[in-house]
Amino acid sequence: MADKPTHLDESGAASMVDVGAKASTQRRAVAGGRITMSADALEAIRSGNAPKGDVLSTARIAGIMAAKRTADLIPLCHPIALSNVGVEFDWEATGIAVRATAATTGPTGVEMEALTAASVALLTLYDMAKALDRAMILGDIRLLEKSGGRSGDWRAE
Amino acid sequence: MADKPTHLDESGAASMVDVGAKASTQRRAVAGGRITMSADALEAIRSGNAPKGDVLSTARIAGIMAAKRTADLIPLCHPIALSNVGVEFDWEATGIAVRATAATTGPTGVEMEALTAASVALLTLYDMAKALDRAMILGDIRLLEKSGGRSGDWRAE
Amino acid sequence: MADKPTHLDESGAASMVDVGAKASTQRRAVAGGRITMSADALEAIRSGNAPKGDVLSTARIAGIMAAKRTADLIPLCHPIALSNVGVEFDWEATGIAVRATAATTGPTGVEMEALTAASVALLTLYDMAKALDRAMILGDIRLLEKSGGRSGDWRAE
Amino acid sequence: MADKPTHLDESGAASMVDVGAKASTQRRAVAGGRITMSADALEAIRSGNAPKGDVLSTARIAGIMAAKRTADLIPLCHPIALSNVGVEFDWEATGIAVRATAATTGPTGVEMEALTAASVALLTLYDMAKALDRAMILGDIRLLEKSGGRSGDWRAE
Amino acid sequence: MADKPTHLDESGAASMVDVGAKASTQRRAVAGGRITMSADALEAIRSGNAPKGDVLSTARIAGIMAAKRTADLIPLCHPIALSNVGVEFDWEATGIAVRATAATTGPTGVEMEALTAASVALLTLYDMAKALDRAMILGDIRLLEKSGGRSGDWRAE
Amino acid sequence: MADKPTHLDESGAASMVDVGAKASTQRRAVAGGRITMSADALEAIRSGNAPKGDVLSTARIAGIMAAKRTADLIPLCHPIALSNVGVEFDWEATGIAVRATAATTGPTGVEMEALTAASVALLTLYDMAKALDRAMILGDIRLLEKSGGRSGDWRAE
Repeated sequence: MADKPTHLDESGAASMVDVGAKASTQRRAVAGGRITMSADALEAIRSGNAPKGDVLSTARIAGIMAAKRTADLIPLCHPIALSNVGVEFDWEATGIAVRATAATTGPTGVEMEALTAASVALLTLYDMAKALDRAMILGDIRLLEKSGGRSGDWRAE
Repeated sequence: MADKPTHLDESGAASMVDVGAKASTQRRAVAGGRITMSADALEAIRSGNAPKGDVLSTARIAGIMAAKRTADLIPLCHPIALSNVGVEFDWEATGIAVRATAATTGPTGVEMEALTAASVALLTLYDMAKALDRAMILGDIRLLEKSGGRSGDWRAE
Repeated sequence: MADKPTHLDESGAASMVDVGAKASTQRRAVAGGRITMSADALEAIRSGNAPKGDVLSTARIAGIMAAKRTADLIPLCHPIALSNVGVEFDWEATGIAVRATAATTGPTGVEMEALTAASVALLTLYDMAKALDRAMILGDIRLLEKSGGRSGDWRAE
Repeated sequence: MADKPTHLDESGAASMVDVGAKASTQRRAVAGGRITMSADALEAIRSGNAPKGDVLSTARIAGIMAAKRTADLIPLCHPIALSNVGVEFDWEATGIAVRATAATTGPTGVEMEALTAASVALLTLYDMAKALDRAMILGDIRLLEKSGGRSGDWRAE
Repeated sequence: MADKPTHLDESGAASMVDVGAKASTQRRAVAGGRITMSADALEAIRSGNAPKGDVLSTARIAGIMAAKRTADLIPLCHPIALSNVGVEFDWEATGIAVRATAATTGPTGVEMEALTAASVALLTLYDMAKALDRAMILGDIRLLEKSGGRSGDWRAE
Repeated sequence: MADKPTHLDESGAASMVDVGAKASTQRRAVAGGRITMSADALEAIRSGNAPKGDVLSTARIAGIMAAKRTADLIPLCHPIALSNVGVEFDWEATGIAVRATAATTGPTGVEMEALTAASVALLTLYDMAKALDRAMILGDIRLLEKSGGRSGDWRAE
């Protein structure tokens, strides 16, 4: 039998999970994702980024700032005192991959912060390239690993 | 030869596109995406949503509110007076599909608003189901159609 | 038979009202409300406000700033280019009355902006006096008058 | 002689209360309020909410998200790491009652978070029903109980 | 005799200037400022920025995003639909100069948006260099030129 | 040889400094700044502020609220649970000086919070006086003192 989503109370109403009794531990999460685009758009992004263009910097800053606003965007997320956020990119044959890391010392995990950073970094890349290719696709946005907390470490297969 | 991304000036620095001279027209964009999850997690979401659970409502509201904050999240997006935002869901065999619509009357398009609504709605679904399945994947986030503006109508193939 | 709330679509899902086809007119709304408190708390607020204390100024600024964030707080409100917001207070025998005015030239009314300004101004008064009286009550928060738009002028009886 | 409001310094200037020396304890606050409306509007909200309408869900989410933004709205409130927020509704003969709960482990109370959640939930109900009844009134917004902190437990009479 | 500040009503209370009757025209403002620092800190920033470091990009994005949030920060500023924002830097002998441009088509000027962009860009530079030099100074933050609106063009001497 | 800015990783990419391993201590920072204006503008501000005008109150509240939003504005700042923020003004012969204090108990300093409060308070004064004098200059914005943390106490010369 399927479990109930944790963000619904017994009547089915949405509510934050009460973390008042959870221990404060060091927690870390890494999320990934990618944007797929045409060869032309990818080449334009690449050349726009070099030697001192701002394409990846802009997406990185957008991702970092979005991580800090996760609780403002996702209704049932707790406000979190992030101790670290980082966003990295990799050029791929058909697009750009993103990898976002978030960390905190606190009672709740930071999966949503890492996923939000990755998503907004990709959206920002889309925004900067959309005049070149409207058919770009954001995908593979998922948790890659997490550590800390009662449920222990986890890593995507 | 590849074009330059429109959000870089001649020196490669990031900047907003100047829309001061663009005509104000009715514009509309539709974006889609989906979250893929295990059968158990999907069943839990489904049952959590019925008869009066808040799962889809919560994700819908999150998406609508995020659309209104797009310019706050995506560094080079213009503030937009949205005239309409809507978010719909479809149950699929292996997850949930989202379809977000944004509209405005103004000088710039609303693709980013529709894509942001879709992304944040999916992130919210992830948040509510993450205790059931950590390996969920967000994907196929893309523009489905747009209308209005100088570049005319466009529809994904 | 009762009408349907305007913010639900035919399936019952929440959505913004599409204002894309509505005319842009000058609109104005006035909302009122009051906070009721003990004589001691009221006297402390009064004396704290004189000769140059910041009590009412703080509540006024909070109300004005909240009006500008209405679409960020109320899920289905449209972003509005407010042309004016004002917040006034009246000392009453058992508390303080607030009167907030909002105005715009646009396709939607500003009732929610005026009501939000009034509510947040009262919450701010509560915050500053709560160490003196925890039993204060916020009430009578309502629309006093509105003008502009298709539905014409309206005034509370 | 009346006490001074705690948010004014000796010169009468507004300032945050310094909580640097206060102990971190588990704190909880419950606030209530209600919206009064015509029988027709109430019936429309009720039917709009059933079987799967989004009226109460939307107001609930708005209240929860507003609680997280309290320090952004109320000038002298401290940022708080909320561990829990919940919003419940009760159908009444002449309207809808709201009851909002907030909790944290920290040096300051969460009364303002509970009151802000209740207020914004009611404003959201107003927004969704305002085309049916402009004369709705928000009232009885007040603290119902609080626990934790140096001042101990308190309950409204 | 001194004039009254425009943001006070006849009773001395703060209020937004009512721009409901002002014409919508193309408006543009340019603001400047500089941060002064030690030779060592300046050299570190310079080398950190080359060949592809993110120092100036980060400050630029911060300034652009802050311009869009001006009405959220400055209590009596009107929300503005910015059509363009740009931030440029110049290396100087003893620090870095910033020049921020904002533009809109609307009833109010964009001086505050340009000044806010310049200020937050400089604060961001301070943040990134503060471990190297705590005695850096932000100064010369001022309007350089403005055009559009009833008062016509203006240029700093 | 110059050190590297602390907010760049080894590849030159912007990132937050990881504070996960830093001790939580009481920290305090004081920042100052001033706005210089014409005698006429200064006199208008002074008279607008008396006997009960809102000029300084408005700037003070803007500064306090901005301090709480520092991590939202400065890309690589950590979210901080401020325990105290205060903003004071001094009338000077050619303008107004501001002094902002911020405090927290946590792993990171609050210099940026104090500097942001001072900057936004000055920007707010500019906004309220700009119709009287467009040539006002914001300057001398700098850290005056800081205490707490590994690097110990510091005071500007």
